[in-house]
Amino acid sequence: MEKIQIYDTTLRDGAQAEGISFSTEDKLDIASKLDLFGIDYIEGGWPSSNPKDSSFFDSAKNSRFTHAKLTAFGSTRRVGLACSNDPSIKSIAESGVKCASIFGKSWDFHVTDALRISLDENLEIVADSISFLKNRGMEVLFCAEHFFDGYLHSPDYALSVLEAAESAGADWLILCDTNGGTLPSAVEDITAIVVEQFRTTVGIHAHNDADLAVANTLAAVSAGASMVQGTINGIGERCGNANLCSIIPNLELKMGLKTNIPDLSQLTAISKFVSETANMTVGRKLPYVGTSAFAHKGGIHVSAVLKDSRTYEHIDPSIVGNERRILISELSGNSSLKAKLGELGIDLDDEDGKRILQRIKDMESQGYQFEGAEASFELLIRRMKDGLRPPFRVEGFRIFVDVTEANVSSEASIKVFDVSGMMEHTAANGNGPVNALDRAVRKALERFYPNLKDVKLVDYKVRVIDGKEATGAKVRVLMRNTDGFDSWTTIGVSTNVIEASLSALLDSLEYKLLKSKEATAN
Amino acid sequence: MEKIQIYDTTLRDGAQAEGISFSTEDKLDIASKLDLFGIDYIEGGWPSSNPKDSSFFDSAKNSRFTHAKLTAFGSTRRVGLACSNDPSIKSIAESGVKCASIFGKSWDFHVTDALRISLDENLEIVADSISFLKNRGMEVLFCAEHFFDGYLHSPDYALSVLEAAESAGADWLILCDTNGGTLPSAVEDITAIVVEQFRTTVGIHAHNDADLAVANTLAAVSAGASMVQGTINGIGERCGNANLCSIIPNLELKMGLKTNIPDLSQLTAISKFVSETANMTVGRKLPYVGTSAFAHKGGIHVSAVLKDSRTYEHIDPSIVGNERRILISELSGNSSLKAKLGELGIDLDDEDGKRILQRIKDMESQGYQFEGAEASFELLIRRMKDGLRPPFRVEGFRIFVDVTEANVSSEASIKVFDVSGMMEHTAANGNGPVNALDRAVRKALERFYPNLKDVKLVDYKVRVIDGKEATGAKVRVLMRNTDGFDSWTTIGVSTNVIEASLSALLDSLEYKLLKSKEATAN
Repeated sequence: MEKIQIYDTTLRDGAQAEGISFSTEDKLDIASKLDLFGIDYIEGGWPSSNPKDSSFFDSAKNSRFTHAKLTAFGSTRRVGLACSNDPSIKSIAESGVKCASIFGKSWDFHVTDALRISLDENLEIVADSISFLKNRGMEVLFCAEHFFDGYLHSPDYALSVLEAAESAGADWLILCDTNGGTLPSAVEDITAIVVEQFRTTVGIHAHNDADLAVANTLAAVSAGASMVQGTINGIGERCGNANLCSIIPNLELKMGLKTNIPDLSQLTAISKFVSETANMTVGRKLPYVGTSAFAHKGGIHVSAVLKDSRTYEHIDPSIVGNERRILISELSGNSSLKAKLGELGIDLDDEDGKRILQRIKDMESQGYQFEGAEASFELLIRRMKDGLRPPFRVEGFRIFVDVTEANVSSEASIKVFDVSGMMEHTAANGNGPVNALDRAVRKALERFYPNLKDVKLVDYKVRVIDGKEATGAKVRVLMRNTDGFDSWTTIGVSTNVIEASLSALLDSLEYKLLKSKEATAN
Repeated sequence: MEKIQIYDTTLRDGAQAEGISFSTEDKLDIASKLDLFGIDYIEGGWPSSNPKDSSFFDSAKNSRFTHAKLTAFGSTRRVGLACSNDPSIKSIAESGVKCASIFGKSWDFHVTDALRISLDENLEIVADSISFLKNRGMEVLFCAEHFFDGYLHSPDYALSVLEAAESAGADWLILCDTNGGTLPSAVEDITAIVVEQFRTTVGIHAHNDADLAVANTLAAVSAGASMVQGTINGIGERCGNANLCSIIPNLELKMGLKTNIPDLSQLTAISKFVSETANMTVGRKLPYVGTSAFAHKGGIHVSAVLKDSRTYEHIDPSIVGNERRILISELSGNSSLKAKLGELGIDLDDEDGKRILQRIKDMESQGYQFEGAEASFELLIRRMKDGLRPPFRVEGFRIFVDVTEANVSSEASIKVFDVSGMMEHTAANGNGPVNALDRAVRKALERFYPNLKDVKLVDYKVRVIDGKEATGAKVRVLMRNTDGFDSWTTIGVSTNVIEASLSALLDSLEYKLLKSKEATAN
């Protein structure tokens, strides 16, 4: 059986998403991960279009990929210009990569109304551009822009564009649903016609404007397409591109097809890596790879999934490197809480269970959300169940911020006691009040607990709980810390952002001390 | 042509999404909006399962819906219990609504391994539960849980469950892809078999675990299903339910089918209302209704879409109540910027264009993101182009926060000058430092500009720009203010959360004064 080729355009089409901006280093990092993951083609960008893409191709020349073919993207030559003088075609030929993706018009309305040239002239442009790059020894993918819309409008012309591309030596005919509005039935029927009529291999490039990009991609594969194009997490312009993190497991696990991905359990890690590199909020709901994809909240689902995971899970989450999570909320009964505590290795009799569940519900009604703050949750349980006490106590703090036209200063002072009653009264400056307080607390506590020096904040988020109250409302602070090995998230809630931050920070440090103590005891 | 019935389960399946928690008032508000929008069935919840759902049904008894049928959800009766003694069945019968959705097992493995009863006993349970509610005059939907998985495993048994439901008088047979893992081709084939074999009308309930919920829903409709179930924005457990905001326009605009929605242009407003009520971050990329759904960033797309919107838009955004947006970023050329400024009614010659574009790129590299802060963007342009100066100036401020075990206090003092050089030096307390500063600034400025009293903050968000620097990193503050008629968003960036907040606040107040002046001038 032939393997379906996977073509990633995260670095080009993905970079056109609202809010996404990759640096050259980001792009090199992502390309290297995609290569190791087993992606066949990595579209690096559009060499002539902006300095960032040009610098990426310059740097990528020195990168060695173990498997992937790095690909340069660009348009067919401009009207009235020879390929040898066309900046886009030239920059692809000179980009140092061996594979080119060239997009051209296949919808007659675009040729006559957007390009404003004759239909025949467009065929010449397509053929010229492909021949030029083929003559330089490159593998060439011809991307037929708006192919499905074009076919539905004028099937003969759309097919004649593919004929021109095939005659000029294109290695692939890529059918693009550029506007993302085509239905799967149409994609399947039209792809089948192309696969039937052409000897060149066919690929599919779908967008998600009608929420059908993954379905359209699978429909094209069913009809004989042997390359799928998309992006990690489905990032891309407007509603995004077809999501490779959904397509790859669907091909392998649902359709019984093969790809060159050696280890599908790296899928969740690749998704997270791209989200973090793009500094995006990770889509919790993302199929297969989202943190909610195998999270169970309703009481019935939780108790059933614990009996047999097939009851509410379509696949074993470990196959894609994800994991099951039991969520605690007002919809939870004691059985969910017991399961959650079981995950933490804590036994619980029914009386404790009721008391803890009530306390959680009370705190949630004050604005706490333990779903995203599992370290704070564990501390809460241990405090209530085992009488855990923090090994330090903050008696109070002061913040002073002074901003003039010439000067900005932020200072925090704090008093901290350790378990034996030893007091440390110290102060620190910072970039802002939260940073000053953070530095003061760490400065004080590191005297008592030197291993806290390894703890570094890696994420800090603030969200207003009730938007209607605006700056006077309660805020929820989430902090993620790491000690270089593990990372954990804590929560603080207050109307005062600084108090909420301190609360999350103290939980974080207490959690580290608890884990170090457990590690020493084992 | 028969109209496709739309069944919304936002208030029940949607409420099982991670991070979602609706109050009773939220649920009443959403139900009322869904009714006005033209939804046919609104599933309000599970009357017996938790106090919130019970209180919703109590309150909803007094609500009058113009079109929708409010529906109570629950399971078939428990094993060994008569319906008249079953808490779930009883609570549905007593909920005060005329329509019930009852779910039961149709996958033999669930019957034998989860329920641990005989296959025949399950058929009796299904028939009993439906008959009981039918005898009380209710319309009854039978939801066949895991129907597709069940059919693929044991087709005869899955169909026998539907036969039991039909014989007992069920008004609808709802085929559920409970685990969300079925492919559209299987959904289409199996639905066609059910539609062929049964005289009862058929509905589809799909989940998005394989990123195919919308496609599966459309596949079932193609095969003859006449009811679609889903949620607004696709919220729901794990990866979510089928998204009605995608399904409804696909049915109407792509498949040429009819629904009872009188005005599709309310779709975007319904999506936003549910997101805001749920206090969720609105999915920018959501098909049809997302803020990015018709946003254009790449230079070629922008210039083409301005020539003819069909080039890169699959539908006219106004049909679903959305709008086109031109995004400004490093990928933009002068043509995008001109188009954006055209939206603001500003002309721009090329020299100004280059200067402004350079300034925007510089600010973006410092962490500004104007995509979400259009009021700050307009002020920036007017300052650079028209020499706009703010009608007030803040010379400096001080913040003092004092937290002890007994007491928390936050105070801000500030000096503000108006255009004539008049100075106001004032101070205020607040719940936290940002709130104190906010109140001090407003107190000072309202003396000069009384119409600022109408301005209220409605949203305040803080995000760390570079997570690697944690509390020492730059933060981006976004504020949304309203004067009761319009609302607008501004941005501030600084390493100091208080300075960033002040910057966004001052932009917001300046923007209000600018708009009031323009309104007076016209």
